[in-house]
Amino acid sequence: MICIYGVELGRPGRPGVGTGVFLLRGDTMIRASIIGATGYTGVELVRLLSSHPEVKLVHLTTRNYSGQEIEEVFPNLTGFGSQVCTELDLEAVIADSDVIFLALPHGHAVPVVRESVAAGKKVIDLGADFRFRVASIYEKWYGIKHEEPELTAGAVYGLCEMHREKVKSAQVVANPGCYPTSTVLGLAPLLRAGLVVADSIVVDAKSGVSGAGRSLALGSHFCEVNDNVKAYNVACHRHTPEIEQEISGLAGRDLIISFTPHLMPMTRGILATIYCRLARPVDEESIRGIYREFYDSEPFVHVFPKGRLPQTKWTYGSNHCHLGLVLDDRTGRLVIVSAIDNLVKGASGQAVQNLNILFGLPETTGLDRPAIFP
Amino acid sequence: MICIYGVELGRPGRPGVGTGVFLLRGDTMIRASIIGATGYTGVELVRLLSSHPEVKLVHLTTRNYSGQEIEEVFPNLTGFGSQVCTELDLEAVIADSDVIFLALPHGHAVPVVRESVAAGKKVIDLGADFRFRVASIYEKWYGIKHEEPELTAGAVYGLCEMHREKVKSAQVVANPGCYPTSTVLGLAPLLRAGLVVADSIVVDAKSGVSGAGRSLALGSHFCEVNDNVKAYNVACHRHTPEIEQEISGLAGRDLIISFTPHLMPMTRGILATIYCRLARPVDEESIRGIYREFYDSEPFVHVFPKGRLPQTKWTYGSNHCHLGLVLDDRTGRLVIVSAIDNLVKGASGQAVQNLNILFGLPETTGLDRPAIFP
Amino acid sequence: MICIYGVELGRPGRPGVGTGVFLLRGDTMIRASIIGATGYTGVELVRLLSSHPEVKLVHLTTRNYSGQEIEEVFPNLTGFGSQVCTELDLEAVIADSDVIFLALPHGHAVPVVRESVAAGKKVIDLGADFRFRVASIYEKWYGIKHEEPELTAGAVYGLCEMHREKVKSAQVVANPGCYPTSTVLGLAPLLRAGLVVADSIVVDAKSGVSGAGRSLALGSHFCEVNDNVKAYNVACHRHTPEIEQEISGLAGRDLIISFTPHLMPMTRGILATIYCRLARPVDEESIRGIYREFYDSEPFVHVFPKGRLPQTKWTYGSNHCHLGLVLDDRTGRLVIVSAIDNLVKGASGQAVQNLNILFGLPETTGLDRPAIFP
Amino acid sequence: MICIYGVELGRPGRPGVGTGVFLLRGDTMIRASIIGATGYTGVELVRLLSSHPEVKLVHLTTRNYSGQEIEEVFPNLTGFGSQVCTELDLEAVIADSDVIFLALPHGHAVPVVRESVAAGKKVIDLGADFRFRVASIYEKWYGIKHEEPELTAGAVYGLCEMHREKVKSAQVVANPGCYPTSTVLGLAPLLRAGLVVADSIVVDAKSGVSGAGRSLALGSHFCEVNDNVKAYNVACHRHTPEIEQEISGLAGRDLIISFTPHLMPMTRGILATIYCRLARPVDEESIRGIYREFYDSEPFVHVFPKGRLPQTKWTYGSNHCHLGLVLDDRTGRLVIVSAIDNLVKGASGQAVQNLNILFGLPETTGLDRPAIFP
Repeated sequence: MICIYGVELGRPGRPGVGTGVFLLRGDTMIRASIIGATGYTGVELVRLLSSHPEVKLVHLTTRNYSGQEIEEVFPNLTGFGSQVCTELDLEAVIADSDVIFLALPHGHAVPVVRESVAAGKKVIDLGADFRFRVASIYEKWYGIKHEEPELTAGAVYGLCEMHREKVKSAQVVANPGCYPTSTVLGLAPLLRAGLVVADSIVVDAKSGVSGAGRSLALGSHFCEVNDNVKAYNVACHRHTPEIEQEISGLAGRDLIISFTPHLMPMTRGILATIYCRLARPVDEESIRGIYREFYDSEPFVHVFPKGRLPQTKWTYGSNHCHLGLVLDDRTGRLVIVSAIDNLVKGASGQAVQNLNILFGLPETTGLDRPAIFP
Repeated sequence: MICIYGVELGRPGRPGVGTGVFLLRGDTMIRASIIGATGYTGVELVRLLSSHPEVKLVHLTTRNYSGQEIEEVFPNLTGFGSQVCTELDLEAVIADSDVIFLALPHGHAVPVVRESVAAGKKVIDLGADFRFRVASIYEKWYGIKHEEPELTAGAVYGLCEMHREKVKSAQVVANPGCYPTSTVLGLAPLLRAGLVVADSIVVDAKSGVSGAGRSLALGSHFCEVNDNVKAYNVACHRHTPEIEQEISGLAGRDLIISFTPHLMPMTRGILATIYCRLARPVDEESIRGIYREFYDSEPFVHVFPKGRLPQTKWTYGSNHCHLGLVLDDRTGRLVIVSAIDNLVKGASGQAVQNLNILFGLPETTGLDRPAIFP
Repeated sequence: MICIYGVELGRPGRPGVGTGVFLLRGDTMIRASIIGATGYTGVELVRLLSSHPEVKLVHLTTRNYSGQEIEEVFPNLTGFGSQVCTELDLEAVIADSDVIFLALPHGHAVPVVRESVAAGKKVIDLGADFRFRVASIYEKWYGIKHEEPELTAGAVYGLCEMHREKVKSAQVVANPGCYPTSTVLGLAPLLRAGLVVADSIVVDAKSGVSGAGRSLALGSHFCEVNDNVKAYNVACHRHTPEIEQEISGLAGRDLIISFTPHLMPMTRGILATIYCRLARPVDEESIRGIYREFYDSEPFVHVFPKGRLPQTKWTYGSNHCHLGLVLDDRTGRLVIVSAIDNLVKGASGQAVQNLNILFGLPETTGLDRPAIFP
Repeated sequence: MICIYGVELGRPGRPGVGTGVFLLRGDTMIRASIIGATGYTGVELVRLLSSHPEVKLVHLTTRNYSGQEIEEVFPNLTGFGSQVCTELDLEAVIADSDVIFLALPHGHAVPVVRESVAAGKKVIDLGADFRFRVASIYEKWYGIKHEEPELTAGAVYGLCEMHREKVKSAQVVANPGCYPTSTVLGLAPLLRAGLVVADSIVVDAKSGVSGAGRSLALGSHFCEVNDNVKAYNVACHRHTPEIEQEISGLAGRDLIISFTPHLMPMTRGILATIYCRLARPVDEESIRGIYREFYDSEPFVHVFPKGRLPQTKWTYGSNHCHLGLVLDDRTGRLVIVSAIDNLVKGASGQAVQNLNILFGLPETTGLDRPAIFP
């Protein structure tokens, strides 16, 4: 198959970030495997990659659905997923794959990453095990010992818009958490501009239930969630230090934040409402200008004009992040509203974006579709 | 009918706030009318009062459903609502009623209140027209001129737990807004204790759609709301000055807040997540103790123990307010989570509670039922 | 406490079914216990009975929440449920109770019922174990052997509107299933009138998720249900023979039906859409007249006028059943739409109604409140 | 741009229905316009066509959003929809377009179609005005006079799987209704096989709210729909005669059906539960075999194996139709469950499929993505 990307996949006036022209033949498709393919982030990877023109899925591993076609487990893939899920055979996965996605709960990634790296294969880990540059922070918040702190040191935190250059040559990409993605994208331009009062950041985030995964739990039981809203893990959510690591990096000094996640009666989406004080007086349009310049060439981050505020549904199923800004003159606080689909830009879509970066493809490859609304 | 309240209606260990014993005969029932009975707060008043042992509904007025039985308009009242709705005949309403509920959008209350007061009748206004002690604030935020600033001065802001004594002798009760109810109840003990850093308050509130009323609007259209979350009226919501008026009164100095309302894909409920800094070091259990003492004798406000956080569904259909507290030692911020049913404690239930106070009944009369869950 | 029921609890023109005047003192409250109090039907019993003026809850048993107050497990009961849940001590339960509610999955009732009956105590079983007059049908559809077929023979099927007289003197009441309640109430007048063509009945039922209980299952996981509709157990749902038993009794001959349950993305409510052919030509208003006459004195069953069709939300939280009728002249089929709240009239509310019958109280005692809408 | 479709767009083992190889250059893109682009089916067309490699959108007309970019009206299109909506200028639309989509309420299509046909342009009408071969049926059910019965006679009913050959050469395609699409696809194989007892068909259909469009109405108000289910238009829904026309054509004789639509608390999706009796004894697997053979080469219709039943969410956002079958041996009825996304296969997706047929493209072009789940 001959295809000229960068042209075909680009949108008018918005070419894929990666430039250049790629010629790939069918027999040189990127071979990818997913470890943990039958969780929500796993199957979302399958969905996205089933439309990716350069990727061929090799192994889909599972603990509970071994022997079943993926479309049998997730019939939304009917017609697209005749591949049979199998129990993990790590040796085979590594041998047959160019890149391995890990879609497991935290605490399970180290052995896989160790072997994969040893075999020279790329790994994109959707869990938390490789996100922290300082292992002790991981250990404190996650309550487990990290078995390979050195491996972590070599991993790249895959928030594409921030660490694109490092991802290009990474062996291990630590795919960001959903709350950190929405929050860091919302704060980055302001932090880079040195405009945030250090101890003033409050992040009030609202998430759909799919963020809690497919494992059975009372907190995800329909009747306990429907027509209901709650805060949870107040002042102790594990995404807090991950956000702090990234925003501290952007600010060039240590920042701590108040972070409160809430569970919404909806399936997908995160809305992060971010409050902070400005270090010096700037008007709203100037701030918007700073944001627009910062994200000017980004295909997946959009800064809304005055008067338009993000809604999670507008990102449903897509890899896009929408940002809205309101400066409250009365209180001097800036309110930033950031929306993503937690399973796409907050997980599997960003993982595909990372794959595109790793393999020199335009970042929009396989991700160039609008969200579904209504 | 002979009934001994205070006994019958009390719960074990939780007697109604009003003490004493009341003997009322059928022909001395309180005659109540509802102006605007076919909106959501109007019909919620009908629902609640249909189970109130001391109230008889006289007039139900409507603009769109004149001539229909209320149970025809709202079949949830089937068997309870054979009363026919009529267009407003203010003279008749005033003549026939001991108390008049106004469930109209703001801007319509003044003429009704003027006439009612002149006739010596009590009015409970669920709208905003009489909530502000300083008319100019109302005029600034609502964008209309107040026709009777003096009447406003005589009205009592009916947040029962705060102004119970004044309500007892009020002629006009300005029933609080839903966001202010949840927010002020959440902050009051802390403010009274002088524990809040003045400019540190951020209120991030999440509301069900019924708060927007029954009028048709794209923002309440099912497909635009379902599986979706958004912020709206950021830094300009009209409940902001109402909250500020009340919390300033509690603190004894002028306070301004950052207030951001969000629309949830649910019908009822408000969850207010309130952030503030403490003026001096206090541990979480001491704060909880302050809250418990403050609300000790309140039948409708409950302070949750450590580790339990409110969920809106736990207040569904009830007049209760649930409060949860978390002190974030890392940031020094207190996070207060306050949940109510916006149509009950946030509107019609509190209006009934005000009626009970006005007429010397135990406050729980007609309101003494738990929320519905799931 | 002195209360004159029948007057106090009746609604204008709609007195409670049980007539007469009852004088009960506090120390003669009916002592009730709930075995399985922490499932959805169990806690719904607690909610309803917490407002029942003649019932005192004695034991609340649980497998998972022993030692916790019921309001700790279900904070919607905050202020109403300081009672501590305990593991089942059957001997104590029987000794201390006048009536025992069983809110367990099927297959667990026999030992409890056996002992309770032996001790002369009343039992209301919300499960399926005692609903079938012919034990072999139970055994075939439920796939387990019935240990006490003779006990079953003595149990009364507690669909109050059909078997009120028998319930009065029953020792064991088999509380009906939710689908059978909505379906049988929808068909009864027509069957009694001999108007149904025998093999023409199709029941297409739609249920909220609470009908599946609080046990964790993928089918009740929020993300699998939200914004989704499915049929399940087509042609094999266990409520089929229960419906057939009752409608056959009403018709005076054996009837079989096509029954298809569907899972709705909602918490509460059943809507049964029932199709059948008429045995002889009757016009719609005549049929409506038959229904109205049949249910004339029933406080909980309402036949809607021409042009009004039931909605489940109109019964939310209440013990009411709403019926709508449309005769399709083109096809000769009658379409009956029947709506209930599956946890109230479809389970715990009807159980309370049965308690009222068993103890000679007006049937509306503790159940005399309208549904919550919106 | 050079692309080899049929290869690129095909899925392994499931090539696009249209075979052959197409070479299209950018300047020969199909020019399409949408009249009524800012309703739900209109914007869904924009979404789908924004990813269609052979179509260029020329005019997007609107009544309410003239002068706004489509992505301003529907920010889910952010980055994909900078095109400005305009008021309808029919002359310009016809002059500039190869194909015109009509996404208007019924009753508005005739003038547009008349002019377009006169100018030799193709029209795909998503409304009902051209669906009926006998204009008098349209007039009876829709209550308006058809101004151009002869134009209707020349229109092709665009249920692709049934009338593909006729669509190829059509000038006017009447895109089917959502309920008819799900129902006719569910019944077609059985009717063609002569297996249905004529008067035995009952269709109980459940639809998401988007089927009612974006126009404001109390029936689409969030609070009236959420956590609620109702039947509506029982025995009088306008899709009834459309279904009857198509199934009568398939059966070769006049059929009438009982059709009951229900409104679900969800945004997208239709589940049609179809009941019928078999004309002669056939076992379930044989029936499944008949269905599989009938739809063997169809890329968008999938017959599920024994034990798997469709769920609407599995088709969310996709052009697929899922069919499940259960033979009820007790009653002799076959139960067919058919699921689609009402806005895609039930409206805009099928319209794109018709465009593909009209222009000789593989039918899957622009539609070759799986549904989104969860």
